[in-house]
Amino acid sequence: MSTIEKSKNVLTLVNIFTVEPGRQGDLVKLLLEATERTMRHLPGFVSANIHRGLDGTRVINYAQWESMATFEAMHRNADAQAHMKAAAALAQSEPVFCEVVEAVSIR
Amino acid sequence: MSTIEKSKNVLTLVNIFTVEPGRQGDLVKLLLEATERTMRHLPGFVSANIHRGLDGTRVINYAQWESMATFEAMHRNADAQAHMKAAAALAQSEPVFCEVVEAVSIR
Repeated sequence: MSTIEKSKNVLTLVNIFTVEPGRQGDLVKLLLEATERTMRHLPGFVSANIHRGLDGTRVINYAQWESMATFEAMHRNADAQAHMKAAAALAQSEPVFCEVVEAVSIR
Repeated sequence: MSTIEKSKNVLTLVNIFTVEPGRQGDLVKLLLEATERTMRHLPGFVSANIHRGLDGTRVINYAQWESMATFEAMHRNADAQAHMKAAAALAQSEPVFCEVVEAVSIR
C-alpha cells in the first residue's frame, strides 16, 4: 500500500507511457521487474505504483522519491538505465514531476 | 491521506491538465473548490489528489471512484458540469482511466 499525503514531502513522478496495442502487458511486466529487482533497492526510493490503462494503450507509473537528487542518482545507475532503455524500446513516455497540493479522501 | 492499493478495487482516473504559463494556480484553486464543494459529496467519490507540476504548466488530479457508473453519474450532475466547464476554459485535459496492477512502497 502506498499513500498520497501533502505532508509526506516527496518528489512525485507521474510517468505516462503509451504503447502499441498488444504491448501493454509486456510493459507492465517490465516495470514490475524493474521495480522489484532494482528501483526499490536504490537510495531514496519511496514507492512505485503501476497502473494499467483501461483502453489498452496506456501504462502509468505513479512514483515517489525522497528528492530530485535521489531520483537523478537512480538515472546514473547502470541497472536502472538498462530497465529504462528496455521501456523506451517498448513505449513512449511523458514524465511529469510534481508535488501534492492536497489529498482529499473519504476512505 | 489517500491510499493506492491493488485490493482497493476502485476506478482510478489520472487527469493530466496542461495550462498556459501563469494559469496553474487558477486551475489548482478551481479543482480544490470543485472537490470540496461538489465532488466529495457525490455518491461513489473515494478521493481526489491534486498535484502541481514543477514546470508550471501541468496539474494532475489522481482521482478514485467506486466504479465507472458512479463516475458517469457525477458527469450528469449539474454542479459537477459547471466545475468541469470552468476547468475546460482554463486548460486542456487528458484523462486516463486505469486500474492498479501493483503498489510497491517502502514507507
